[in-house]
Amino acid sequence: MSLPYMTREGHGRGNNRRMQPWRTAIVNKDETHIWIRGYDITQLMGQAGFVDTVFLLHRGRLPNPGERRLLDALLVASADHGAGAPSCATARLAASGNRGSLSAAVAAGILAIGDEHGGAGEICMTLIAGHAPAGKRASKSMDEAAAAAVESARQGGERLPGLGHRIHTTDPRVAVLFGMAADLGIAGEGIAFMRALESAAARLIKPLPINIDGALAGVLYDMGFPASAAKLIFIVGRVAGLTAEVAEEHAREKAMRIRIPIEYDGEPPREISKTEE
Amino acid sequence: MSLPYMTREGHGRGNNRRMQPWRTAIVNKDETHIWIRGYDITQLMGQAGFVDTVFLLHRGRLPNPGERRLLDALLVASADHGAGAPSCATARLAASGNRGSLSAAVAAGILAIGDEHGGAGEICMTLIAGHAPAGKRASKSMDEAAAAAVESARQGGERLPGLGHRIHTTDPRVAVLFGMAADLGIAGEGIAFMRALESAAARLIKPLPINIDGALAGVLYDMGFPASAAKLIFIVGRVAGLTAEVAEEHAREKAMRIRIPIEYDGEPPREISKTEE
Amino acid sequence: MSLPYMTREGHGRGNNRRMQPWRTAIVNKDETHIWIRGYDITQLMGQAGFVDTVFLLHRGRLPNPGERRLLDALLVASADHGAGAPSCATARLAASGNRGSLSAAVAAGILAIGDEHGGAGEICMTLIAGHAPAGKRASKSMDEAAAAAVESARQGGERLPGLGHRIHTTDPRVAVLFGMAADLGIAGEGIAFMRALESAAARLIKPLPINIDGALAGVLYDMGFPASAAKLIFIVGRVAGLTAEVAEEHAREKAMRIRIPIEYDGEPPREISKTEE
Amino acid sequence: MSLPYMTREGHGRGNNRRMQPWRTAIVNKDETHIWIRGYDITQLMGQAGFVDTVFLLHRGRLPNPGERRLLDALLVASADHGAGAPSCATARLAASGNRGSLSAAVAAGILAIGDEHGGAGEICMTLIAGHAPAGKRASKSMDEAAAAAVESARQGGERLPGLGHRIHTTDPRVAVLFGMAADLGIAGEGIAFMRALESAAARLIKPLPINIDGALAGVLYDMGFPASAAKLIFIVGRVAGLTAEVAEEHAREKAMRIRIPIEYDGEPPREISKTEE
Repeated sequence: MSLPYMTREGHGRGNNRRMQPWRTAIVNKDETHIWIRGYDITQLMGQAGFVDTVFLLHRGRLPNPGERRLLDALLVASADHGAGAPSCATARLAASGNRGSLSAAVAAGILAIGDEHGGAGEICMTLIAGHAPAGKRASKSMDEAAAAAVESARQGGERLPGLGHRIHTTDPRVAVLFGMAADLGIAGEGIAFMRALESAAARLIKPLPINIDGALAGVLYDMGFPASAAKLIFIVGRVAGLTAEVAEEHAREKAMRIRIPIEYDGEPPREISKTEE
Repeated sequence: MSLPYMTREGHGRGNNRRMQPWRTAIVNKDETHIWIRGYDITQLMGQAGFVDTVFLLHRGRLPNPGERRLLDALLVASADHGAGAPSCATARLAASGNRGSLSAAVAAGILAIGDEHGGAGEICMTLIAGHAPAGKRASKSMDEAAAAAVESARQGGERLPGLGHRIHTTDPRVAVLFGMAADLGIAGEGIAFMRALESAAARLIKPLPINIDGALAGVLYDMGFPASAAKLIFIVGRVAGLTAEVAEEHAREKAMRIRIPIEYDGEPPREISKTEE
Repeated sequence: MSLPYMTREGHGRGNNRRMQPWRTAIVNKDETHIWIRGYDITQLMGQAGFVDTVFLLHRGRLPNPGERRLLDALLVASADHGAGAPSCATARLAASGNRGSLSAAVAAGILAIGDEHGGAGEICMTLIAGHAPAGKRASKSMDEAAAAAVESARQGGERLPGLGHRIHTTDPRVAVLFGMAADLGIAGEGIAFMRALESAAARLIKPLPINIDGALAGVLYDMGFPASAAKLIFIVGRVAGLTAEVAEEHAREKAMRIRIPIEYDGEPPREISKTEE
Repeated sequence: MSLPYMTREGHGRGNNRRMQPWRTAIVNKDETHIWIRGYDITQLMGQAGFVDTVFLLHRGRLPNPGERRLLDALLVASADHGAGAPSCATARLAASGNRGSLSAAVAAGILAIGDEHGGAGEICMTLIAGHAPAGKRASKSMDEAAAAAVESARQGGERLPGLGHRIHTTDPRVAVLFGMAADLGIAGEGIAFMRALESAAARLIKPLPINIDGALAGVLYDMGFPASAAKLIFIVGRVAGLTAEVAEEHAREKAMRIRIPIEYDGEPPREISKTEE
């Protein structure tokens, strides 16, 4: 199929001619083995489990029992929140138009996850990282830092990340996660800061319960995860629900069943004028 | 950053050690030029246009004036069909949860395009390719082939691809496209087969107007495009609308504004039993 | 913001005016509770775990200990297979160009999962479902069914789903999964059929080891999952790896670092001719 | 299928019970018409074209001839930049693993478009909007503003958006676009600022030619587009190339053909220790 005329891009610019190998410290394999972070995958399958593997992939070591238990609960807490949650609804809409590809529908659901849905934990963790060290010196400092964050959001007219929910007055997942973290001796600055933020918001604005994003942020911070993990761990959990939502859409509904009520309020009918053309 | 322990995958299996260059016949470039299918991109920018370039990318040559005009109309016809069309609604839902990424929202919209929405043209073109040659011999044969296709879909309980619409009784885009193709001398077996299919469906099932998928299939077949082009050309057109829908969502609406009414009809509340655990 | 000119789509077609509630049997919630398939999420967090929840979401009931253990191992087996696996490489490439969106990169990785990568299990399970019942009558029948499937693939020049790997001569995950399924009393027709298929391929074509897709198909069939679960459960597992690959790309590499060697073999430079324009 | 146990979410919270219609000012339709921004789609198909429709969708009015011509050239300039460009390579990798879904591969390609690839124009336009008004008062002010932006990027160790390219020493698209904008009387603050930025970078850092992102930003600013359009218009253009790249991957290559060379530099093989488990 190749014609007489052939060129390679970037003559004389050697680094384009040959692909540098991609470096990775995650997985190695040969003809009969797969190692994840150095552990033989068959041992991980036999002597550990999926939650351990999620921790291992992200942290480079296996979790201790308390870490495993807490991460397990975090993943359950993130798994699904109903067919109308933006990620789930987006996956179902995509499945409704494109039944041919399961992975397309699941991917569409993930694309709805961002700073406003499932991802505010990243912002919270950055906020905690900025304020919590000051809080280490005195509990009063943390309250002040939280109050300052609330005040700043209020003046900027911004939403407070990790607080408030459009359905729950109290998010049932939060108390379980924070209690478990306390029982396991993991609770620290992260959870304390989120509670201080909730108190400051209630005092200065109105009662805004900690939501799942805020809970993940507090717990993941105290477990030593980086800020980006808030979004990534949420995605790992949520994909369990997204796959089930897509399966239910296929099993129970017909293609193209979803109708969105539309109200048009734009330009009335008009003609293409000569001057435009 | 590299540790003393380093390996390359596939020891002794040479084809893994070095990446084979990827072959392409689409774009070539050097430090000061870009050629698309051999044409300097600056000439395409100055002496041709985007519709020519879409044709060139897919067909390997520039279109003649009739082909350009028809492809131009096809792209307009595909551009947008309202905020409630599955692709547009999916894009807006994704944008509602994830305002941080414009490309994520547009991509989510594309993921709703499949055999049931915007993609049935591919099935139609395969159907035309299978039946139309027989039709060449006698117009009666084409009617028979169309009737056989309708009969087969009816017995299998399948939707007829390219026919029927949940809103339009007559899709206004079809007559324009087919009329333009006739005026330009391009109309042939593809359009004739789609019309025969519409007639057979009306006779054997019920009136089911040709929809945009069916129209694209007929016209693209007569222009010499392969079946996969029905979906791909639709996507090129639709992304114009998707980008505008996402921009409107950002400009007019708040994050997380979309609420889907949910009715739960599953298991009532229950306890985790000991035997399960 | 609404102008004097306003319309609602589909006047006189009532079903467009109001959105029907979406039905679901997966999640229910109120202001202070979330139930997944009837179980309070706080109980699932405290008394069960993520692997139970994945099973529950897809099957509507909690797993017994053997089912949980096997699903856990399946998810570990699917979690990651190296930065060069198509799903992982796609995620990293997307992250390289678009560092602003973690969910976009993870979603891109999922989009590389299809019948050729991570999804062949769905085809295998359909094959098993078609052939295995015949196999129930006599073990010879299953061998014959497997031979027929191999013969048919060979004649059609198609790849045998679930067999063969470009790196592994023996996939280490397969023996662990099949052994665990046997130990737990779950192994049945699915695993037996995959082994018969492997034998038939070795006899009639060449040694082609069962790969992870084939292993998932055999085990999930014997656990009672529908065919679509092969792809969906693989995605749940793989997203753990995808999130870690994306995190490593951000942590270790610069934006736009990936260079693909390209060899152009298309049209040489040419001019736009007058007749075309 | 519905069980005796049924609930609707959000009892007593009326706004969840019924979906508010989605507002839109883009498309309206009835049983026999489709209007885009008030224009009947059949007139747009017959009397206008796709480039007009892209402009109309984003700006709410049809372009004048100069605007149409410039937008047409912008879309050609964005259409494709070779199989190795991140968006194109991502689309091809996805197609290599998942041949079953054309829309999945195209969407994956779009997901690689972000601030580092194809999207820096958005940052540039924000930069222009912040600095250009000052520039209006005296040309010296614009040079100073550009120098300040370069200085600030240099001190922060950040890449200058819209400048520099890993292959081109001069991007051939830039001069064409800026020349065309000047000839059409559209060139203004946006292009002037990008040129001032290029000069300042050459003086203070090193020669960094304006790239396509910078060119789009300058031209789109001068045409009156908002900053988000830089990414969205680039996506509209690029999807033409992405669809052709995916089509070529299907036509010329086998599934799973892409091999990435990997170098593992992580933990050497190790055992799961008792204390961990």
